[in-house]
Amino acid sequence: MNIGIVGIGLIGGSIALRLKATDFKGKIFGVEKNESHQKKALQLGLVDEIISLQDALAQCKVIILTVPVDAIVNLLPEILDQVTDQVIIDMGSTKTNILNLIENHTNRGRYIAAHPMAGTEYSGPEAAIPNLYKDKVMVYVDAFRSDEDAFEIADGITEQLEMKSVFMNADEHDMHTAYVSHISHLTSFALALTVLEKEKSQGRIFELAGSGFESTVRLAKSSPDMWTPIFKQNRTNVLEVLEEHIKQLTMLHSKIKEEDYEGLHKLIKKSNKIKRIIK
Amino acid sequence: MNIGIVGIGLIGGSIALRLKATDFKGKIFGVEKNESHQKKALQLGLVDEIISLQDALAQCKVIILTVPVDAIVNLLPEILDQVTDQVIIDMGSTKTNILNLIENHTNRGRYIAAHPMAGTEYSGPEAAIPNLYKDKVMVYVDAFRSDEDAFEIADGITEQLEMKSVFMNADEHDMHTAYVSHISHLTSFALALTVLEKEKSQGRIFELAGSGFESTVRLAKSSPDMWTPIFKQNRTNVLEVLEEHIKQLTMLHSKIKEEDYEGLHKLIKKSNKIKRIIK
Repeated sequence: MNIGIVGIGLIGGSIALRLKATDFKGKIFGVEKNESHQKKALQLGLVDEIISLQDALAQCKVIILTVPVDAIVNLLPEILDQVTDQVIIDMGSTKTNILNLIENHTNRGRYIAAHPMAGTEYSGPEAAIPNLYKDKVMVYVDAFRSDEDAFEIADGITEQLEMKSVFMNADEHDMHTAYVSHISHLTSFALALTVLEKEKSQGRIFELAGSGFESTVRLAKSSPDMWTPIFKQNRTNVLEVLEEHIKQLTMLHSKIKEEDYEGLHKLIKKSNKIKRIIK
Repeated sequence: MNIGIVGIGLIGGSIALRLKATDFKGKIFGVEKNESHQKKALQLGLVDEIISLQDALAQCKVIILTVPVDAIVNLLPEILDQVTDQVIIDMGSTKTNILNLIENHTNRGRYIAAHPMAGTEYSGPEAAIPNLYKDKVMVYVDAFRSDEDAFEIADGITEQLEMKSVFMNADEHDMHTAYVSHISHLTSFALALTVLEKEKSQGRIFELAGSGFESTVRLAKSSPDMWTPIFKQNRTNVLEVLEEHIKQLTMLHSKIKEEDYEGLHKLIKKSNKIKRIIK
C-alpha cells in the first residue's frame, strides 16, 4: 500500500518519519509545491519521491492532506471528484466548513476527517520528528459518515502513530480546539507583540526572559501561513473564546486597578484549578 | 559561615539544595512559620534546623529572604534595625517599593536587592530542585548602594548557584520583569479562567488539550500567595503591560472580526520576530 502525503512539513513529515520506523511496506510519496521543501524532504529521507497530485491519486491507496486548512478546502472537492477506492485523510485543525462543503459529494465515504492533537511551534520538513504523535490524541470527526473499509485503513495509520482515538462531531471539535489550541496561539502571538513593542523603546528587556516567559511565548514562533487559515475557518468559535479571554484579562486588570487584592487572590486561586486537568 | 533562609519554598529550598551540593561549610537554618513546610523542609534535608528569625540573626552571617514580596516589605525594616555586620539578601520579584522604603536606613549597606530569574509553577518545600538556578540570570538592583564586603558575600552565593549576573536600577528592573515575567503569569491565569469557564458547560473540552495548551497555561498553577503581592508591589508597570497586551489581543480580534486575513497574517508574522530572542 502506497501513501501520498500532500504537504511535507511538520505534520506530514512526522507521519512519514514514524511510518518509516515501523514495518510499513509500500512507498511514501510527497506532493509538495514549495521547491526548497521538496529538496529538504528528499534529503531528509522523509519521502521516497516527489510526485504530482495526479500521480499520487493514481499510485496511492491513501492520500493524507497536511497542507494549511484553506488549501484543504480548495483541494478536497477536486480530489474527491477523482477518487475511486482511495482513502483521503484530512489532518487539518478545523472541520465544520470542510465537512459542510463535501457533505453531499458522491465519494463522501472515502473521506476521513481526522485531527492529530500534536504539534510544535516549528514548521517545514526540518521540523518533522519521529515521535510527534506518540501517546497523543487523534480526533475523528463525524467518523460514521466514512466507509467502514476507509475508516479501518485510516485507523490503522493512527495505530502506527501510537495515538489514542477520540470521536466528536464537527461543532464540538471546532469549539473545543478553539478553547484548548487556537486561543493558546492567539495569546502567544499577542504576548510576543506586546513585548516586542516595548523592546523597541527599551532595548535590554530580554536579558531577563526566564523560563516562564519562554513557555508562554513559544507558540508565537508558529507559521502565519498555517495559522491565519485556521482562524479564518474557525472564525466564530475563535471570536467567542477571544472575547471571553479578553473579558478575563480585563477582570484581572480591574482587580489590580482598583487595588482589590483579595478579589485578585480569589481569581488566581480559581485559575489554579487547571491543576486538575494538566499534569 | 551560617546561612538563614527565611521562607523555605521553591526559591529558598532550591538555594539550600544547591549549597548543600557544593563544598559549603557552615549550617543552613530555615525560618518558616508554616508548620507543614517546617516538617517537609527538615524531612527533605533542605535545612539543618528550623529556628526563629531572632536566632537566625544571632547565628548567621547571611540572611536570605525568599518569602512573598509583601512579607519582605513588612520584615525588612525590623531586620535592618537589628543588623550589625550580617548580610541581608532579598530575592523578591519586585524592587522599587522596598528600595524606597529602606533608602535612608542606617544599615542600608548591609542589604542586597537581588532577583533570581528562575522558577517553576510549583511552590512549597517539595518544589525545591537543585539545579533551578544553573545558567540563569541573577539581577542585582542598585548594587552600588550595598557595602562592598556585603556584595562580595552575596555574589559568592550567586556563583555557587552557577548564575550569571546582570545589574539594573529599580525602575528598569520592575518594568522589565513586568514585561517578561509578570505578564506571562497574568495571561496564563486568564487563559485558565477562560477555559475552566467553558468547561463548566461543555465537559469533555480537555480531552483535546495538547502540548501547546499545556505550555501556555502551566504558569496558572502558580501560587496566589506569591503572585498577588507581586502584582500589588509592581502595580503601575503591571497595569501598563496588561493594557498593552489587551490592546494587542483586541487588534487580533478585530482583524478576525473584520475578516482582514492579510492584516492578521502580517501581525502573526510580526510576532514571529520573537524567534530572534528566545531559542
